[in-house]
Amino acid sequence: MNDARRSELLSLYRDGLLQNVVPYWLRHAVDRQYGGIMTAVNRDGSLLDTDKGVWQQGRFAWLMGKLYNQVERREEWLQQAEQTIQFIERHCFDSADGRMWFHVTREGAPIRKRRYAFSESFAAIAFAQYAKATGSDEYATKARALFHRFIQHNLNPQGVTPKFTDVRPTRGIGFPMITINTAQELRESIGLEEANEWIDRSIDAIRTYHVKEKLECVMETVGLEGEVLNHFDGRTLNPGHAIEAAWFVMQEGEYRGDASLVQLGCRILDWMWKRGWDEEYGGLLYFVDLYGLPVQEYWHDMKFWWPQNETIIATLMAYQLTGDEKYAAMHQQIHDWAYRHFPDPEHGEWYGYLHRDGRISTPLKGNLWKGPFHLPRMQLICWKLLDRGASAADRQAALGQVAT
Amino acid sequence: MNDARRSELLSLYRDGLLQNVVPYWLRHAVDRQYGGIMTAVNRDGSLLDTDKGVWQQGRFAWLMGKLYNQVERREEWLQQAEQTIQFIERHCFDSADGRMWFHVTREGAPIRKRRYAFSESFAAIAFAQYAKATGSDEYATKARALFHRFIQHNLNPQGVTPKFTDVRPTRGIGFPMITINTAQELRESIGLEEANEWIDRSIDAIRTYHVKEKLECVMETVGLEGEVLNHFDGRTLNPGHAIEAAWFVMQEGEYRGDASLVQLGCRILDWMWKRGWDEEYGGLLYFVDLYGLPVQEYWHDMKFWWPQNETIIATLMAYQLTGDEKYAAMHQQIHDWAYRHFPDPEHGEWYGYLHRDGRISTPLKGNLWKGPFHLPRMQLICWKLLDRGASAADRQAALGQVAT
Repeated sequence: MNDARRSELLSLYRDGLLQNVVPYWLRHAVDRQYGGIMTAVNRDGSLLDTDKGVWQQGRFAWLMGKLYNQVERREEWLQQAEQTIQFIERHCFDSADGRMWFHVTREGAPIRKRRYAFSESFAAIAFAQYAKATGSDEYATKARALFHRFIQHNLNPQGVTPKFTDVRPTRGIGFPMITINTAQELRESIGLEEANEWIDRSIDAIRTYHVKEKLECVMETVGLEGEVLNHFDGRTLNPGHAIEAAWFVMQEGEYRGDASLVQLGCRILDWMWKRGWDEEYGGLLYFVDLYGLPVQEYWHDMKFWWPQNETIIATLMAYQLTGDEKYAAMHQQIHDWAYRHFPDPEHGEWYGYLHRDGRISTPLKGNLWKGPFHLPRMQLICWKLLDRGASAADRQAALGQVAT
Repeated sequence: MNDARRSELLSLYRDGLLQNVVPYWLRHAVDRQYGGIMTAVNRDGSLLDTDKGVWQQGRFAWLMGKLYNQVERREEWLQQAEQTIQFIERHCFDSADGRMWFHVTREGAPIRKRRYAFSESFAAIAFAQYAKATGSDEYATKARALFHRFIQHNLNPQGVTPKFTDVRPTRGIGFPMITINTAQELRESIGLEEANEWIDRSIDAIRTYHVKEKLECVMETVGLEGEVLNHFDGRTLNPGHAIEAAWFVMQEGEYRGDASLVQLGCRILDWMWKRGWDEEYGGLLYFVDLYGLPVQEYWHDMKFWWPQNETIIATLMAYQLTGDEKYAAMHQQIHDWAYRHFPDPEHGEWYGYLHRDGRISTPLKGNLWKGPFHLPRMQLICWKLLDRGASAADRQAALGQVAT
């Protein structure tokens, strides 16, 4: 990657974040009457549904706090973090059991709680950035408590009816990978004491149960001992998800100065790129089967925005950490495909859901799952990765010339 | 529809059923070791997953019994009904609460139960056809008991954690429509005494809460009083589902000699055809929004096999019952599109999941949801509708020249 490309990309990510994506959500999604944000917006930002996703409240508050802490101490961002956290605290907890809801009305009445506890992990990172921004011990304590609730609920769910019997117990990669990133966030923002311990446990779990050297594959769902379950669900791979885990692991490798972690992250990226990259149309497929058999999920061959976002981060990070031009080429390939198909030049932001060949499946910009998160996180991380480009060579040296 | 077309279609449906679809499932899906059927097969019938869907066990046993009772007393069909019912009785009930599972292993160990009770309704129609075939009072009693379990669980679910809070209660069209067809089946096979009462209640519910004259629309999900809920889920229409309900209602109109029911069914068909027919590529879309806004479900614009099957039945039935050539033209339109895109001339049966433009999304022929049901039911019903074609004019007269 030459300096011109580096500088062009840096501007694209930075300006896309600050002049396009963040303003899009501030303009269209903020609920100035009840607080929080309403992310179910159509292409032009008009509202499709006033309901609020709890994940998106936490993610938006996190983004606002992160920008305030990492980019610039802009008062508007802090206020948005604060007003959204207030909405979360007032309306997103079930007082009966202390768990968080998944979906609430505009006014904050509860619609749905889910079996798992990712609302808690996203609220934790929001509270932690807010604590850092304000120096509030109270919010640091609340962030820690949410992190522990997230962990505890996943290890030992209480008060939920399991979706499946215990005939074929499984473990998913979602819990360990989100634990890594949540702990990284809380370590950086509020100095979470046990972050390294949870990150170690989670990387160990991924390595022990999900990473399959012989298959050159990271399994999304396995048996309790890591067995490959030869059924639809067991064979279904989610390359974008595994590649997101890859950069969490690489990032940890850089933080610890541990080349073996960078190497592990790069290996996951290499394998899952090979499985997920669509040779026919380009872009990353949503689901593929371990053995190339048909997948049961209907949207398996669609191009969702977030797997592309995560792959853009992972390839750029791999390049920065290893200096291997292969990753610069991969980064260019996924970046160019994504930027050719996803952005909406007229109204801003990205479409979320394309058909396999890149045609738009739905023009909406948000819903309970898509909001101000994967895209602006990608823009922020890639901007910051490129910004320190000059010193990348030093870091490679420090990591002992990681070969992948 | 002229006699040549009628005769050509009759052969196509009959031969497709008896020489293609039924043999496909008998050859590939029957589990000669553990009983029941394994419907998760690839294009060529090779097995993708040994797990068994409980819906599909009931549906297959129903089909076998129905063919035995309605087509020919072929020993193989009765044996298949019997062996599948044995599998259901041994493995598909949870002894803890008497409810049925949704998903079991090949050997019959339970994997998953669902909040609703459609496993029960499909088992009920299977047991009832088997009772008719064998003259067994025992199975007639079991079929009645399953029907009551289905009704009771839907009216008053016990032992399940609701998916949603009671902040925005809804009613779906699925329960009343399946009640109509299940009661019709049990009336025909075992003379279910309270069939008419349940059918009346269900048609009333659909007419009162789901049929919207001013909107010219049948709503899939409404508020408890039939309110249109202006949220993603409330606006999401399922035209193929409503059209399936339309022919259940038309069929009841014919049975009762009630022209107003035939008229209601035709009106539902007219409205939902208009909303679901894809003017650009042909075929029936899966989901559309009440106001033409984006739909949240990812597979909204795919062409699934079953909405086409149900629309082929409904248009032909509407034509037979009204003599209106408009319905013959609609039947030809949906029939021709479906037969151009879904059948697999090499291995038999139909693909289940096409992209909007008719390209194949996945080559599999079955899974937990697709099995020997919608397609063979369509073939059987359309064959039998055409077979009595000569007397159709008399029936129209009896129904008082229904104008639609």
